[in-house]
Amino acid sequence: MWAAGARRPGLVLAALAALGLALEALVARRRRPVREVLFFPSRPSCTEALLAEAASPDDTPGPCPCPLPHGDCAFSRLLRHLLSARRSLELCLFAFSSPQLGRAVRLLHHRGVRVRVVTDAQYMALKGSQIGLLRHAGIQVRHDQESGFMHHKFAIVDRKMLITGSLNWTTEAIQNNRENILIMEDAEYVQPFLEEFERIWEIYDPLKYMFFSKENQ
Amino acid sequence: MWAAGARRPGLVLAALAALGLALEALVARRRRPVREVLFFPSRPSCTEALLAEAASPDDTPGPCPCPLPHGDCAFSRLLRHLLSARRSLELCLFAFSSPQLGRAVRLLHHRGVRVRVVTDAQYMALKGSQIGLLRHAGIQVRHDQESGFMHHKFAIVDRKMLITGSLNWTTEAIQNNRENILIMEDAEYVQPFLEEFERIWEIYDPLKYMFFSKENQ
Repeated sequence: MWAAGARRPGLVLAALAALGLALEALVARRRRPVREVLFFPSRPSCTEALLAEAASPDDTPGPCPCPLPHGDCAFSRLLRHLLSARRSLELCLFAFSSPQLGRAVRLLHHRGVRVRVVTDAQYMALKGSQIGLLRHAGIQVRHDQESGFMHHKFAIVDRKMLITGSLNWTTEAIQNNRENILIMEDAEYVQPFLEEFERIWEIYDPLKYMFFSKENQ
Repeated sequence: MWAAGARRPGLVLAALAALGLALEALVARRRRPVREVLFFPSRPSCTEALLAEAASPDDTPGPCPCPLPHGDCAFSRLLRHLLSARRSLELCLFAFSSPQLGRAVRLLHHRGVRVRVVTDAQYMALKGSQIGLLRHAGIQVRHDQESGFMHHKFAIVDRKMLITGSLNWTTEAIQNNRENILIMEDAEYVQPFLEEFERIWEIYDPLKYMFFSKENQ
């Protein structure tokens, strides 16, 4: 075969080029970033199995007997992406009152994921807010002191997956509103959001609270 | 040269392959989609030049004497992308009260761009809403009749550029809130939003108004 190749260098080159292209396609396929669009309202669905599996990956949970549907839906997909965090989770959320999402975030914190939350000072005190529960669990939360709203609604999973859109993390928004979420791993979109998070995180440093400064003036 | 090529087919093949790759790279570069992230609040800036230029592309506007800064900012970039529409503009907006964005949309309509607007029934009646002005100008507007909010905040320019994020189209949000916008031409993200717009557009068809149905029952 090598002898045949030596007589027909064109054939060998063409074969090598084809092999190269096939390998490139394979690598590109394996590295293909997550690109997903979810629309809401999402129908109510049972998330017990997802949360139980995330809490105890070694135990296979039995079938849930509750009357809710148990299939895939926009909300379960959001929850699944969130629960995929292994190292870090940055949350920048105007309103956060969904009990299931609150439970998922506390679960990630207990699993050793570094969770940081930025939120809006006015909305974090509303009835049903999850922010108190997150702080109680030892999760770092920072909030604005500004007249405008901290109106972002995004999450960054393991510094590589961005979840962003119109959806506030409330049951009302998930079940009743028309909303969208983009889930993306394109670095061109993720990187600016990471930088924005770090910027806001520093601006909202509690050492920079204005009442603190005033007391010390 | 052809004689030399005939003697060395491998060289010719390699040269052709290199030429093919170079052409491919050139095409890919020319087709590179817009991928931009904008963060708000945007500093107040004069948008007269942008709007005047869009209204009369043949007239070069003189320098604006107003005291506002005239440079580039997040808001002017949003406005510029919006004004790039040539054929169609789909808007799906929870709240729309920014006078500059309202003027830009009416201007596109007058220029012959097919503008369609979907909005939230409760928010379209708020003080300062641009929806009345858009309808008065002859732009098609449809709204929800649902208990939940029509909470999307996206625009699609010429069916190929998606503008979406947390930003409602209000001066308050633009100048005072922390907000984000993604501007993207990736078909994987644009297409689902186009389909969602068409779906909502049909659901909100005025022939399907519930009071209309009741009167006729």
